[in-house]
Amino acid sequence: MRNIMHLTFGFFSCQSSKMTAKAEMEAEEGYISPPPTLPSTPCSIHLGVQAGSMRRGSDVLSTSRGTVRERGRNRSWLLSSIITVNVLILGIALVSGSVFNNVKINAINLQIFLIVLVILTTAWMLYYTIYTSREDHAVLYKDSHAGPVWLRGGLVLFGICSLIMDVFKIANYVGYLHCDSAVKIAFPVVQAVFILVQTYFLWLHAKDCVQLQRNITRCGLMLTLSTNLMLWMAAVTEESLHQTVVPPEDGNSTHSYDIRAPGGYSSCNCSHSACAVLEKAYYYLYPFNIEYSLFASAMAYVMWKNVGRLVDEHNHHSLHFRLKDVLVGPAVGLVMLVAGLGTFVIYKVDVEKGDPGKRDTVLMIHYVMNTVAVTLMSVSTVAGCGIYRLDQRDHVSGKNPTRSLDVGLLIGASFGQFTICYFTIVAVVATGAEGHLNALNLAVSLLTVIQLCLQNIFIIEGLHREPFHEDMHQASVFTNPYVLQAQAHRDIHNLPGTFMETKSSPALTVHSMHVAPSAPSGSPLPQRHRLTWKRRALKEICAFLLLCNILLWIMPAFGARPQFDNTIGAEFYEFTMWAAVVNIGLPFGIFYRMHSVASLFEVFLTS
Amino acid sequence: MRNIMHLTFGFFSCQSSKMTAKAEMEAEEGYISPPPTLPSTPCSIHLGVQAGSMRRGSDVLSTSRGTVRERGRNRSWLLSSIITVNVLILGIALVSGSVFNNVKINAINLQIFLIVLVILTTAWMLYYTIYTSREDHAVLYKDSHAGPVWLRGGLVLFGICSLIMDVFKIANYVGYLHCDSAVKIAFPVVQAVFILVQTYFLWLHAKDCVQLQRNITRCGLMLTLSTNLMLWMAAVTEESLHQTVVPPEDGNSTHSYDIRAPGGYSSCNCSHSACAVLEKAYYYLYPFNIEYSLFASAMAYVMWKNVGRLVDEHNHHSLHFRLKDVLVGPAVGLVMLVAGLGTFVIYKVDVEKGDPGKRDTVLMIHYVMNTVAVTLMSVSTVAGCGIYRLDQRDHVSGKNPTRSLDVGLLIGASFGQFTICYFTIVAVVATGAEGHLNALNLAVSLLTVIQLCLQNIFIIEGLHREPFHEDMHQASVFTNPYVLQAQAHRDIHNLPGTFMETKSSPALTVHSMHVAPSAPSGSPLPQRHRLTWKRRALKEICAFLLLCNILLWIMPAFGARPQFDNTIGAEFYEFTMWAAVVNIGLPFGIFYRMHSVASLFEVFLTS
Repeated sequence: MRNIMHLTFGFFSCQSSKMTAKAEMEAEEGYISPPPTLPSTPCSIHLGVQAGSMRRGSDVLSTSRGTVRERGRNRSWLLSSIITVNVLILGIALVSGSVFNNVKINAINLQIFLIVLVILTTAWMLYYTIYTSREDHAVLYKDSHAGPVWLRGGLVLFGICSLIMDVFKIANYVGYLHCDSAVKIAFPVVQAVFILVQTYFLWLHAKDCVQLQRNITRCGLMLTLSTNLMLWMAAVTEESLHQTVVPPEDGNSTHSYDIRAPGGYSSCNCSHSACAVLEKAYYYLYPFNIEYSLFASAMAYVMWKNVGRLVDEHNHHSLHFRLKDVLVGPAVGLVMLVAGLGTFVIYKVDVEKGDPGKRDTVLMIHYVMNTVAVTLMSVSTVAGCGIYRLDQRDHVSGKNPTRSLDVGLLIGASFGQFTICYFTIVAVVATGAEGHLNALNLAVSLLTVIQLCLQNIFIIEGLHREPFHEDMHQASVFTNPYVLQAQAHRDIHNLPGTFMETKSSPALTVHSMHVAPSAPSGSPLPQRHRLTWKRRALKEICAFLLLCNILLWIMPAFGARPQFDNTIGAEFYEFTMWAAVVNIGLPFGIFYRMHSVASLFEVFLTS
Repeated sequence: MRNIMHLTFGFFSCQSSKMTAKAEMEAEEGYISPPPTLPSTPCSIHLGVQAGSMRRGSDVLSTSRGTVRERGRNRSWLLSSIITVNVLILGIALVSGSVFNNVKINAINLQIFLIVLVILTTAWMLYYTIYTSREDHAVLYKDSHAGPVWLRGGLVLFGICSLIMDVFKIANYVGYLHCDSAVKIAFPVVQAVFILVQTYFLWLHAKDCVQLQRNITRCGLMLTLSTNLMLWMAAVTEESLHQTVVPPEDGNSTHSYDIRAPGGYSSCNCSHSACAVLEKAYYYLYPFNIEYSLFASAMAYVMWKNVGRLVDEHNHHSLHFRLKDVLVGPAVGLVMLVAGLGTFVIYKVDVEKGDPGKRDTVLMIHYVMNTVAVTLMSVSTVAGCGIYRLDQRDHVSGKNPTRSLDVGLLIGASFGQFTICYFTIVAVVATGAEGHLNALNLAVSLLTVIQLCLQNIFIIEGLHREPFHEDMHQASVFTNPYVLQAQAHRDIHNLPGTFMETKSSPALTVHSMHVAPSAPSGSPLPQRHRLTWKRRALKEICAFLLLCNILLWIMPAFGARPQFDNTIGAEFYEFTMWAAVVNIGLPFGIFYRMHSVASLFEVFLTS
């Protein structure tokens, strides 16, 4: 008893005595921090000596070091949360002030606040990049699930669009420089630098699990998150106000300045001729900037969650992408995609013309296209969920922060689409749903709600399943010869099949490990076919859903706004309210579709 | 190796074979569900037999049972979340519709929706109460931290006020029955029944950790949560609309009906004379109803989190409340409380009179009182945080869902106060902060923001410390005689103190276990004094903060609305916006103060 106690204590003090004082202060409970430079073998050599010398002082020390760890994490989490709360709520107050009282607080006050935030964040990101490039052991672990390629690719794409928007803004405001505030030029300049630095920073460091300077890093990441959310909020507000004054129908009155627009433009004329074109151009780029802020926020949040985390590397299954197994799903999906893009082009062209008669026709086509897509998706998702019920694959056990975060982001992002759908449903039902157009609008909204619920269930179920990892299962069977032998016995007794086939068939091996409890025995050969069929059906469904989600992503991302072209929402709610709902909900909807595509790809691989 | 494998597998299958099929389906990973009726000893007897018989079928079975557990939890969490999302977003759309388009959707549509929700929830709560009273093993564990007495007491208090409000509403609407919809009476009747059932349900079952019918219980609790949030949303909206039409200043025009008020009252006269009085009375009771919904939501959420949880009973420290240790804190706190209540009474009386000159004076007194309170609180909190830095007590390790929830609710509820403060700061700064009144308003808001940040840090730090539990520490020292002996040796060597004193002094024993790493050795007697001084100071600070929080709770809870009496907010933002901010933020602020009082009491006990 006494010996055991000493061994344990000795080991603890050995562990911590190898760490530098700085690392100790930052080390944390739960996310155990081993001394990375030194292997643990010297510790075990010291053990006997230390236990013999009976240094109770160091025992007590090791206990209080555990205390310091726990305290360090709590404190920096709390501090970074408090920073975020204060920045965000002050920002909301400023934005509300600039919307409701443009006389006392105008966009310039808000922009000065944003410039300060952006400069601070840029400075921190530069500091972090330089610091981690100099220190050898700053980043020892990388989370392979964080910052996947679709997220980083999207970030770069939207970043480029945002940069172009900033260039247009600068060129536009130069024309007003003789009669307007210089802050208006300063803001896009600072923002352009920020976007460059941030895209570089997130591209390089999105996967980092930071181990040094955790307090500073946590606060810095939360500052980055707050800044991006503030930029998002400011952009959404500006976009909504812009739409309130210049509704999409009268596309010719692009130069009618908003009274609420800062600086009182009405008495200020642009000094060069390109202003009207530039302004129209940069308003088209606003949605990309909004999306960029959302992407950067998500990545900063993931990085913040990963600070101090140790990732076990053995989780990396090398899953291969093979399309030859599937045929029907991708084929039908591609047909949907092509048809959808065709109707989207017709829609864009005809809506741009602004002829009300034609607009109703193209809206009808758009709704029909959406109804078909969403119905097929729902049906195939139900089929997929049914297969999951039959399928007896293991659920992934144990906590996985990245997976929880993925699920959280998926459900959170779906709120945007839910909100738009329910607002539409209420508006259409309350006005009586007269005419084909309203009936279709109602049908699309209802079906989309159902599709969102089903797709969330399908993706989350899929992400929580163990992958069909053939090599791994075979390996586990070979190391456990008893099971294999028993399996062989059963096979021989049940059916005159060859023993060799059992050994060479991974599908059968998998089956033997995950046999259904309701039917523990049976003839293996028919079951082998059923399993292959199940896996194939799941892959077909995933491929189909993936392509349909790409379609539903492209249409709003590239400017389809049936919510505004169909005037029922704007008439039912006041335009401001409706614009706010759509402008907040739609970017989340786009994010949701992109995230779904990525998650479905993962489910496709693991099925 | 082979034997070990079989033993493990055999144990698993034994565990699960004792469970009923139903319980298995509902059993979950993480929250391990042992067979409650049967002890585990028969399992160990079976072990040998089972290992000998080599039933590989049952091995496979036990694996897939683990799968079923994991799946069960995921599915019911997902399902209950989806229900909540759909109910809430549909509700938001209906509320927005009724606010922005009163012609097509009026309060009656919304009330029908609410009636349906309330009836469903009431039915489920009755079903749950009857089911659990009939089944013996439905609730085996109780979470002693859930549903503390302040929360249940507050629920009953606010529930009674809500019932009175409903009675007044019914009496009022009876007068309009000849020319208005009967739904208007149906809603308060149904709501009254709901409040009675819910208060009874939460009073009895708030601590339950449900083990049977988990899927249904999760969905039912989420339905309860959604219903309460919807009732809260509807009440906040109605209160805001009411204030928009009848601003507090002209108290004589109580009978001027809102155009937006449902049913077009303007052409409908009350048939009895008490209407005006009743209506005025029930609008005074609205804030209590809003608070009731928040309390019920918080309790339903805690119950939802506790479904399927197993609580280890050994965590129940019996901490005793003794006031004789502390003097200064409670004394100063009581002075503040009495002074604050005095100014509050003056404030209420003078504001009711409606004299603008007097209003400025009482507002000034109110602000000065708040400034003093908040400043003293901030200073003492800083002192408390300083003591925490000196104090080397252990941090509580391990996950505790109730503590995490407490912290989450504390931070979440503080958002309301933060929002009001920042909105005030922006408004006052933007208008130039001219005059004593504005300067004081700004000072109070700034200081409150600081105080909120500090108090959050102080409470969270305090909740994460191990309690100074004297018996427990002494017990652990006695079972570990080696440490005690060493301690005695050190004491004897260092100081000519008596050995008996060391043994009988809990403070010193505690100190010896948690000596500071920076000063591992030293004379124990002075340190004993220092420790007592630290503990006492912490208790004084907690007592003082507790009383001040009671003051800051009573003032808004019983009707102080300086946010409306000082017209700067309403003038700066539009009145609707300002009313929305205050009406949403203030109930959270009240909840925050009550929660702080409870948390500070806990910190007081553990210090």
